[in-house]
Amino acid sequence: MKLLIVNPNISTSVTELIEAEARRSASPGTALTLRTAPFGVAYIETRAEAAIGAYATLVELAEHHAGHDAAVIAAFGDPGLAAAREMLPIPVVGLTESALMSAAQLGGRIGIVAISRRIRAWYRETVDACGMHSRLASIRCLDEPLADIGSVQRDKGEQLVALCRAAVREDGADVLIIAGAPLAGLARQVAERIPVPIVDGVSCAVRQAELLAGLAPRRASEGSYAAPPTKACQGLPPALARLVGREGHDNENEEGNS
Amino acid sequence: MKLLIVNPNISTSVTELIEAEARRSASPGTALTLRTAPFGVAYIETRAEAAIGAYATLVELAEHHAGHDAAVIAAFGDPGLAAAREMLPIPVVGLTESALMSAAQLGGRIGIVAISRRIRAWYRETVDACGMHSRLASIRCLDEPLADIGSVQRDKGEQLVALCRAAVREDGADVLIIAGAPLAGLARQVAERIPVPIVDGVSCAVRQAELLAGLAPRRASEGSYAAPPTKACQGLPPALARLVGREGHDNENEEGNS
Amino acid sequence: MKLLIVNPNISTSVTELIEAEARRSASPGTALTLRTAPFGVAYIETRAEAAIGAYATLVELAEHHAGHDAAVIAAFGDPGLAAAREMLPIPVVGLTESALMSAAQLGGRIGIVAISRRIRAWYRETVDACGMHSRLASIRCLDEPLADIGSVQRDKGEQLVALCRAAVREDGADVLIIAGAPLAGLARQVAERIPVPIVDGVSCAVRQAELLAGLAPRRASEGSYAAPPTKACQGLPPALARLVGREGHDNENEEGNS
Amino acid sequence: MKLLIVNPNISTSVTELIEAEARRSASPGTALTLRTAPFGVAYIETRAEAAIGAYATLVELAEHHAGHDAAVIAAFGDPGLAAAREMLPIPVVGLTESALMSAAQLGGRIGIVAISRRIRAWYRETVDACGMHSRLASIRCLDEPLADIGSVQRDKGEQLVALCRAAVREDGADVLIIAGAPLAGLARQVAERIPVPIVDGVSCAVRQAELLAGLAPRRASEGSYAAPPTKACQGLPPALARLVGREGHDNENEEGNS
Amino acid sequence: MKLLIVNPNISTSVTELIEAEARRSASPGTALTLRTAPFGVAYIETRAEAAIGAYATLVELAEHHAGHDAAVIAAFGDPGLAAAREMLPIPVVGLTESALMSAAQLGGRIGIVAISRRIRAWYRETVDACGMHSRLASIRCLDEPLADIGSVQRDKGEQLVALCRAAVREDGADVLIIAGAPLAGLARQVAERIPVPIVDGVSCAVRQAELLAGLAPRRASEGSYAAPPTKACQGLPPALARLVGREGHDNENEEGNS
Amino acid sequence: MKLLIVNPNISTSVTELIEAEARRSASPGTALTLRTAPFGVAYIETRAEAAIGAYATLVELAEHHAGHDAAVIAAFGDPGLAAAREMLPIPVVGLTESALMSAAQLGGRIGIVAISRRIRAWYRETVDACGMHSRLASIRCLDEPLADIGSVQRDKGEQLVALCRAAVREDGADVLIIAGAPLAGLARQVAERIPVPIVDGVSCAVRQAELLAGLAPRRASEGSYAAPPTKACQGLPPALARLVGREGHDNENEEGNS
Repeated sequence: MKLLIVNPNISTSVTELIEAEARRSASPGTALTLRTAPFGVAYIETRAEAAIGAYATLVELAEHHAGHDAAVIAAFGDPGLAAAREMLPIPVVGLTESALMSAAQLGGRIGIVAISRRIRAWYRETVDACGMHSRLASIRCLDEPLADIGSVQRDKGEQLVALCRAAVREDGADVLIIAGAPLAGLARQVAERIPVPIVDGVSCAVRQAELLAGLAPRRASEGSYAAPPTKACQGLPPALARLVGREGHDNENEEGNS
Repeated sequence: MKLLIVNPNISTSVTELIEAEARRSASPGTALTLRTAPFGVAYIETRAEAAIGAYATLVELAEHHAGHDAAVIAAFGDPGLAAAREMLPIPVVGLTESALMSAAQLGGRIGIVAISRRIRAWYRETVDACGMHSRLASIRCLDEPLADIGSVQRDKGEQLVALCRAAVREDGADVLIIAGAPLAGLARQVAERIPVPIVDGVSCAVRQAELLAGLAPRRASEGSYAAPPTKACQGLPPALARLVGREGHDNENEEGNS
Repeated sequence: MKLLIVNPNISTSVTELIEAEARRSASPGTALTLRTAPFGVAYIETRAEAAIGAYATLVELAEHHAGHDAAVIAAFGDPGLAAAREMLPIPVVGLTESALMSAAQLGGRIGIVAISRRIRAWYRETVDACGMHSRLASIRCLDEPLADIGSVQRDKGEQLVALCRAAVREDGADVLIIAGAPLAGLARQVAERIPVPIVDGVSCAVRQAELLAGLAPRRASEGSYAAPPTKACQGLPPALARLVGREGHDNENEEGNS
Repeated sequence: MKLLIVNPNISTSVTELIEAEARRSASPGTALTLRTAPFGVAYIETRAEAAIGAYATLVELAEHHAGHDAAVIAAFGDPGLAAAREMLPIPVVGLTESALMSAAQLGGRIGIVAISRRIRAWYRETVDACGMHSRLASIRCLDEPLADIGSVQRDKGEQLVALCRAAVREDGADVLIIAGAPLAGLARQVAERIPVPIVDGVSCAVRQAELLAGLAPRRASEGSYAAPPTKACQGLPPALARLVGREGHDNENEEGNS
Repeated sequence: MKLLIVNPNISTSVTELIEAEARRSASPGTALTLRTAPFGVAYIETRAEAAIGAYATLVELAEHHAGHDAAVIAAFGDPGLAAAREMLPIPVVGLTESALMSAAQLGGRIGIVAISRRIRAWYRETVDACGMHSRLASIRCLDEPLADIGSVQRDKGEQLVALCRAAVREDGADVLIIAGAPLAGLARQVAERIPVPIVDGVSCAVRQAELLAGLAPRRASEGSYAAPPTKACQGLPPALARLVGREGHDNENEEGNS
Repeated sequence: MKLLIVNPNISTSVTELIEAEARRSASPGTALTLRTAPFGVAYIETRAEAAIGAYATLVELAEHHAGHDAAVIAAFGDPGLAAAREMLPIPVVGLTESALMSAAQLGGRIGIVAISRRIRAWYRETVDACGMHSRLASIRCLDEPLADIGSVQRDKGEQLVALCRAAVREDGADVLIIAGAPLAGLARQVAERIPVPIVDGVSCAVRQAELLAGLAPRRASEGSYAAPPTKACQGLPPALARLVGREGHDNENEEGNS
């Protein structure tokens, strides 16, 4: 099994955190390709940054997905996920969605712990878009600017543990998600200090990607996740243009899309 | 990895269908224990039958879970799932929940195809209890009494395919779930004839059980999925009494539950 | 009018509290049969205990409903209510549902006051299953282990009054429900000290049972609350087997159920 | 027990239908006062007519409630119900709300059968305002102008039975409400021809009014259903002015309302 | 363009505040007619007062709408809005609805700041009736009785600013609405001291009324906002009787309404 | 007043349709700048195309917004709207949101008529993201491939009118939106043939943009619509980098964002 993992932001230090946790999580036979967004911002916490990251992710997925069995969009908030799912012939998962769907099978109400106040609105909208609003206990967050996104686990570990405990005791969380690629791996380290199951976006996404690839679902040729219908395009990177503009090939499902 | 799979109804022919699909789905190193409910009805399609099946399932899980890494409740509708999740020290999954959480990562709106009109209300309430109401496209069903629950796949295969297609074209389903243990394996056979991804409760549940066991979440000691607090009980099978009545042992989390 | 009242837990001291309040609430001509669950736990506050209580209640209702005009499941959380409603030829009510439907006619948002932290998740899910989520102001609870379930009213009366007032002033409750059979009768005693109308599960359920029996609704022969379709069963108490397995009789509505 | 029943429209023939069904439904010891709105329209099917009927009902309730134990607003759609509940010191019920809360205890999804297309939007909004949206199966209606509101039961009986059956078979209704005061009593007549329980607004409202009066709830002195705070008013009928303007008396709860 | 603005309460001092802000907001060519309710209460904060205000507003709109291009119901809570929209041949807007629809285009979650505790329930129900529940961050309010409704802006200005800031920082409001006609104009004065956009009901309603009149929508002849079908009426002011009773004229859409 | 209108797709023929309707809708003193996306697809009907269009729109808005009072994203589905609202110092509106917020003031349930089956899922998700799910009557669509996006109004006019009428009569729409920039202006032409008010995305958006600019709201310095916090970026067009990366300037609100 081969997975393509794309970090939607430009921080290679974050890509390294993602890779480390992904390698710890992946099954023995799974090969991983890691990619970092070629353009964008250092990390994503707003809708504007997510829109930029979504496009960068689509460009990267289009260029590199060939030969992989599934893909992972490795930012909590899942920038470009639904778009990629339409475009690509392989399953695509995102950190938020995979963590939610995994956590939902470990308890009732789900708490999310995040790295900044600003990021909460985007996360909440992502949860809502998954239809999981009624499962959300709360989104708690660190409340001070981060000195360094790469060392947030070390700098803020105790505060994150305190947030987890508060989510259980005050918000009624039955299970927790440590959110955000910069926190990849933290769940594993603090699990014994938290009184409920705790999961991590990267490990859930890698495993759910393996699971979906294992189910070997056929690609949709009808419905709203079929490949976009053929149409003219301009100014797109060639690999993306081939997927979205579909210049003549892969047209067996045109009738279905009409 | 060892999984315990309990069929909540009394039909050993259904247990055999479940076992066959479970073995096709499980990873190479996974060992399976199959159990059939010791009391109950031939198959479950009402709330009354589900309440009976839930209790039978709890009895069976209590008796046999030791030595397993996760458990599967192998009836669509997930009788006893939340109760079992509180009681057992290992992850427990159900066919409906696992299929929904898998399908949700393959498309937007989810269609369910079922074997009887009567069963639809119970399934709809199960989807609602998962908080996935907004993801449900429709529940379509066969509309005639079944001659034989064991041969429904052979007898009604064409009708089930037609229902799948209608769910896509008329109800807007992006992904389908073939529901009910008696249909275990059908998704695999008809996938090429259906224009969207289609999944099956048994295969999703087996794989999600492996995934959750792999995450090795700690057991909740607080929150609403911690083990039930110690209290007097009477008239329960001994294994169940030990889990629910907790006669003196396993009391490290009493404070958290109070 | 004859009502069958089943206490889903095994505590006869709780049955006595229920009986006392039920006799205060019932109309002059109403006769009451009280039954205590033959197996189960001392009181119900988790999903696991509710699943056990549901089965015990179905067994008891099946055995004793003959000759009654309606039945009451006398635990807040309504274990087995929907199942019993399918199975029995008479109306069946539960404490939560009856209290909600009564309280809803006395104000807008409904506050629930309960006896333990742990019980809140189960109550909230019961309210959700009734479709009354948007009417719920809050569920407040006592926060310490109970020394004695039988004397909770005397031991914790002042704290319960304080919780009621907080539900009005901080959570916006317009009407209150004192929840749980162990608190039966408390609403009556403290009403004058609480600034909004306050109702009790037992008194509401007894009166709603009388009301529904008075409407003399015909039993459903179609829809999802018709009697379960005939099918093989095994290992069930004979009275329950007759209702669920329906061995040959009562078959006028088979067509409707198919 | 004394009940005040106000017909919010000006049709005395409808008041007579209401009275006949109310007398059939009331308990032996219950005395009924019937009133017809002193101004307004012949029957209410729009939001505009309901707003007029609401005010007429408040005027009538203010004038006549003294000496009664509870009041019934006898139009489906419940014009003025929440307003009356704030204003009056006795319980007040409406046909829609009482029928919904009764029907909810007889099945899962509730179907409503109504007398005109136009009336459906107002009914749907009333169900929504009760928070019972998720319990609604459908609102079906007669589709032709009514020749005579007083003889609709006789003229349209067969069509109404057909609508009831369609609501069960096509919309999944488990229980039905025959809506609208002009249809008072019809449920009783057609019950045997409908395959699910069927209730009527007038009989439910009369019985729920008796039930609530029997609970003897104290009047709210805090929360959003306390009496409106004292303030200047002008141009109102004296009885209404006394309740809303509260000119100096009944001021024990001013603090609570502030 | 000519707008009719009706104050649903009897306070001419409030009408003057409304007029001042309306004139500041209206486009150069817009002429305004201001009317004060001929009967009712000093200001509206309960459902009972709103029901009275709704009727008074309908009477006033019926009498005076001729010759205007759109109408404004100038109380937050929008008494009589849906009714007026059915009745009148011109667009009608309300302060709550217009402010919500404007604010929704300036941010995500909307905070409302109001003048009394009691008024919050009515406002919340108005937001719900608009379908905007999920956009509501919170409704914060002054917590003491008002000495004088006419000087609330001067007396309570600092407290209102503090409530605005708390709605942003504690409740997650992205945009604020200063609610209630007595606060008309305050948003304009305090905008620079509040860290998010802040709007006012009167200015939004005047501008939205101009906008809708500019779209020149045709009046509905079908659907639930067509004029009420012809029927007998009695005891209504003549202008209102003409609109609701429609005595013979304006009958081109009878077929559509049936 | 100056408005910047960006067409998120690359079709200049669609930009011309937009411009024509925008000029018919704008107030006399309003100047319009029209821009067409510099890269992307011919028209947008999928999530993938919308993600591409969102980025192209952000690039274009960043480059050209200076000197304008408000901006319009001129594709139904509002690609990039929330992102742009964070980034830009001026109000930004989208066709879907503006049409919904305008239509919501003209009736109760809103029907949308669209140009392709495929586009419906994206539109529905856009309505959901606006929180207007409960106001949506239906989304009806043309069901055949379009020969020419530029001539769809002429080619399909009669079918679109038939869809509008069906939305009113079968789906309960009280007001209609003709969706999609390629249909700009059609509402105006067919209004007299449709029995309810009908609005158009372009005209609503232009007028709402004028309205919001007229309110002169201050830009958020706190909350989730404040400008994105300063962070490193790479590979972005300079104008976009200045808005998102905020290289040192415009830092007065850093504290608020932290």
